[in-house]
Amino acid sequence: MTREEKEAYMREALTLAKACPASGDVPVGCVVVSDGRIVGRGRNMREANASATAHAEILAIEDACRTLKSRTLRGASVFVTLEPCPMCAGAIMLARADNIYIGALDFVSGACGSRLNLFDWGIAPAPKIEYGILKGECARLLSDFFEEMRKNRGS
Amino acid sequence: MTREEKEAYMREALTLAKACPASGDVPVGCVVVSDGRIVGRGRNMREANASATAHAEILAIEDACRTLKSRTLRGASVFVTLEPCPMCAGAIMLARADNIYIGALDFVSGACGSRLNLFDWGIAPAPKIEYGILKGECARLLSDFFEEMRKNRGS
Repeated sequence: MTREEKEAYMREALTLAKACPASGDVPVGCVVVSDGRIVGRGRNMREANASATAHAEILAIEDACRTLKSRTLRGASVFVTLEPCPMCAGAIMLARADNIYIGALDFVSGACGSRLNLFDWGIAPAPKIEYGILKGECARLLSDFFEEMRKNRGS
Repeated sequence: MTREEKEAYMREALTLAKACPASGDVPVGCVVVSDGRIVGRGRNMREANASATAHAEILAIEDACRTLKSRTLRGASVFVTLEPCPMCAGAIMLARADNIYIGALDFVSGACGSRLNLFDWGIAPAPKIEYGILKGECARLLSDFFEEMRKNRGS
């Protein structure tokens, strides 16, 4: 996959993420790509759905499973604007996706190398991980959201 | 909670698990208990739903969030017949449940102490974990399932 293609898919994930603040959700978006097309889309909807599990990656993986009528996503690539947490890295592992493309890193709870690397235990074949796709835009979306939250709390 | 109460809740999780083999699913069941009542139920439905994420704990947590109309489950206890995998341990962490009661251990992918302990990283306050509730029955259900699978493959 060329750099341009990777950035185009990450831009789709960013577009999904941008819908999050309207529901009070931290802006994270995710798309799953298989055979050159987007088969799953998700954005963080924990507040919107009042659900502990409604992270962007979980919803995108579930969407992709429905599209492909399969409980595994072998050969697929996951594009996500923020490094997956342990739950989401675990879901990607269970889905057997081949690649994870990450925008911004998460040093608090990132489970693809920043806080921990879930793939270190050899539970399942590790996907190839690439960091920093449109990282500036992905990180800015998050910092703008938290800045806005702080302002609103202060007012 | 008394031993008898814990075993009664684990027995509910076992009842859910027993429905799994009919859909070809590995038998794992889970209930979420809050304020002395079961607020969420789930069984492994990866095959039934053709979904990577449809583990018993994820479905039980989502059910509990719907019941309580909340994205967190503070004060809740999760009863699960098999030690949670990283995805499910991560979901319990995000839900902020207080207790995890586990039946059988999973040395292949258990993320509550057997293969790894996800709560070691201090990402969120660690729940109290208790192992071995009805462990014989929980383990036997799994070994019977895999034994049956092997037989059917061999025939």
